Amino acid sequence: MSSNDTIVAAATPLGFSGVAVVRVSGTLAFEIAKKVTQKKEIANRKATLVDIFNKENEKLDQAIITLFTSPSSYTGEDVVEVSSHGNPAIVDAIISSICSFGGRLAEPGEFTYRSFINGKIDLIQAEAVASLIKSKSIEGAKEQQKILGGQLSKSINKIRGSLISLVSSMEHQLDISEEDISPDFEETAKETLNNLYKETLEISKTFTMGKMLSAGVSVVITGPPNVGKSSLLNYLCEEEKAIVSSTPGTTRDVVSGELILEGVPFRFYDTAGIRSARGAIEKEGVSRAIAQKKEADLIISVFDKPSTKLEKQTKTPSLFVLNKSDLHSQTPPKPIIHISCKNKTGRPKLLSKIKKKLQVNSISSDIALLSTPRQAAALKICAENMIRAKDLFAASTIELELLSLELRGAIEALDTLLGKTTPDDIINNIFKTLCVGK
Amino acid sequence: MSSNDTIVAAATPLGFSGVAVVRVSGTLAFEIAKKVTQKKEIANRKATLVDIFNKENEKLDQAIITLFTSPSSYTGEDVVEVSSHGNPAIVDAIISSICSFGGRLAEPGEFTYRSFINGKIDLIQAEAVASLIKSKSIEGAKEQQKILGGQLSKSINKIRGSLISLVSSMEHQLDISEEDISPDFEETAKETLNNLYKETLEISKTFTMGKMLSAGVSVVITGPPNVGKSSLLNYLCEEEKAIVSSTPGTTRDVVSGELILEGVPFRFYDTAGIRSARGAIEKEGVSRAIAQKKEADLIISVFDKPSTKLEKQTKTPSLFVLNKSDLHSQTPPKPIIHISCKNKTGRPKLLSKIKKKLQVNSISSDIALLSTPRQAAALKICAENMIRAKDLFAASTIELELLSLELRGAIEALDTLLGKTTPDDIINNIFKTLCVGK
Repeated sequence: MSSNDTIVAAATPLGFSGVAVVRVSGTLAFEIAKKVTQKKEIANRKATLVDIFNKENEKLDQAIITLFTSPSSYTGEDVVEVSSHGNPAIVDAIISSICSFGGRLAEPGEFTYRSFINGKIDLIQAEAVASLIKSKSIEGAKEQQKILGGQLSKSINKIRGSLISLVSSMEHQLDISEEDISPDFEETAKETLNNLYKETLEISKTFTMGKMLSAGVSVVITGPPNVGKSSLLNYLCEEEKAIVSSTPGTTRDVVSGELILEGVPFRFYDTAGIRSARGAIEKEGVSRAIAQKKEADLIISVFDKPSTKLEKQTKTPSLFVLNKSDLHSQTPPKPIIHISCKNKTGRPKLLSKIKKKLQVNSISSDIALLSTPRQAAALKICAENMIRAKDLFAASTIELELLSLELRGAIEALDTLLGKTTPDDIINNIFKTLCVGK
Repeated sequence: MSSNDTIVAAATPLGFSGVAVVRVSGTLAFEIAKKVTQKKEIANRKATLVDIFNKENEKLDQAIITLFTSPSSYTGEDVVEVSSHGNPAIVDAIISSICSFGGRLAEPGEFTYRSFINGKIDLIQAEAVASLIKSKSIEGAKEQQKILGGQLSKSINKIRGSLISLVSSMEHQLDISEEDISPDFEETAKETLNNLYKETLEISKTFTMGKMLSAGVSVVITGPPNVGKSSLLNYLCEEEKAIVSSTPGTTRDVVSGELILEGVPFRFYDTAGIRSARGAIEKEGVSRAIAQKKEADLIISVFDKPSTKLEKQTKTPSLFVLNKSDLHSQTPPKPIIHISCKNKTGRPKLLSKIKKKLQVNSISSDIALLSTPRQAAALKICAENMIRAKDLFAASTIELELLSLELRGAIEALDTLLGKTTPDDIINNIFKTLCVGK
């Protein structure tokens, strides 16, 4: 992505609506704004009612135009926003007009990329923009707001700053004496490192919840035919998602429903009852059910006879549910969850077990959660370097040079995390996941 | 629709995008803006970066807020626009927050309805807003811009003004003498009426093109099996829309493709070849083909043997196309259009015939075209009243009272057209066709 030219794109979804927003960013933005509006001056940040023209002098729309002077704009460059009528033909014509006056179509995420390049946000914040837009719950969105606001970057930068001080003082020690190390320094340095490691670990731990919030959780309902898997899906999602019948083998396609718990978007999948299938369609259904199970974060194994032997077949976390509890007098032993889809009993219990199993917690407003595998991986490298550094400290002879090397490795991992030294292809991949116009 | 309260809605389509716009209008709009931003003052028309909060004091998003003070706003009331991140969960949360501070969800078209009620636009212009948003081509959109800009309303108001003067002077004549009418007055009045009638007719005529521009045109390709109907669809739309094979009866579902000619969105429908169908699926295909033909604005009858007898089966305008012209040496007689989908010859000729048949013209930039059946119907009533008035003028004894009655009828028709005396249910229907948020 080059960043010397002026880019343009629709920032709102394609569709017929009240308003559409076209965004322009770059050195030519204001010149282009004057040309498409045929105005000599447009005030900064003032919502101004204008006519938008093409190069052939035809009026395309009446619109509100707003200018944002560099560096106080989303990208840090001169930015123009045009609010037109929400019609794809008009939006296309406005974008074409802007291109005819020197703009070019933006690539996905290019506005945010420029914001990153111009130092308005770091790479963690850029990832937050992508996650924020994709969030399926307001809780997920709020989490990303914290990161975008710099809460996570601040914690990371604090650890990074302390590591740099530690390395500096260590290298200062090396300068003074290559062999001896002052006991005072050793004591302080050890404690500092321990604390930094703890902080790093604390942040790492947030990934379990952060990942669930941003990527969601997939729960597969499995079990023999006719135990009430489709009924359970409907009961859990409180909606008639799947066709229910007393004929075994009714469900063929994988049917799913969504439910948000503590802000985490759960997708429940109802699958074909697994048995030796009769006929090609049921066979296909069973093989899809098996494939879906492999992708699951949690498996709910349903059965309808208290005497069924519990078998955990995979490494995936599982829960066992006895349905049709209205038909059984005896209470099944733990860990079996007793429900009746027919009488609508047992749902709160099951939901609470699901949350417990996956460690879905209420979100504290104080901590920003890691939310991308890239972030988690970088922090893991940092923590591993710290562990090796701690080991070096524990040795009878402390090898300051090796120690310094490990700590520098930890700093590098954080630099990658923040986008200070991240390879171009990784950076490009992050921005590509964004939509055009962001 | 009540108009004392403060309404709120998303003005952009639902989706994951760079930006979403939430619009608020009404007396409480500015108070609500201060509450959701926790700001004491927000400047008028200045794009201001703010945090948006809910009643529970949680930050929902960082957004750009712009205030438009009454009456210089879309609705004529105090209006607030919030540009947030384009995430449905965030948009929902912002709208909920605004509602918790005294807003209520807007009904479809309610912002434009308020603009109408507050005298910012008349009913013709309100219809233009709806048509503008729905336009499938930039030419169609430009047409509606003209109407929205008041070009059509101005012409209608001019006729209305002249009619009112005419009636006044006529009733003045009546006051002077109930029997005699001055020859001078008679002469002038006759001429005025003739001119007004001509002007009304000119505007009425524009409906043919205006309707096509806004509603589009439906063209059904029909004919016996295996003459190349699917090939013709693909060739016309320059896209592989329909599956083509040499087996007669390949097409079952109605397959369609779009093409824009002079700004008019044409939809071409490929249908099953009509014959005594073999089997239930083909039978269903044939019956769908027949149903589609009934809805057509134009039928293209395809055949592949020069000897075929041309039969026009319906009142719908028709064109006859001889396909596979590469196989025939002789040129077929007019009006048959000779094409070869295989060799890709004849498309320009066919398109020009289609345009001619339907009177699709290049659009002049001077005239605004009528574009809704309601507009056409009102103008028709006006013209009919004028014809009867002209007849009264032509009688040996001119009955001024009857004449005045007819002209008042003509004025009433124009009042309905402009929304001055339009029944509430008609007005409500017009605004209901708009989306929520407009």
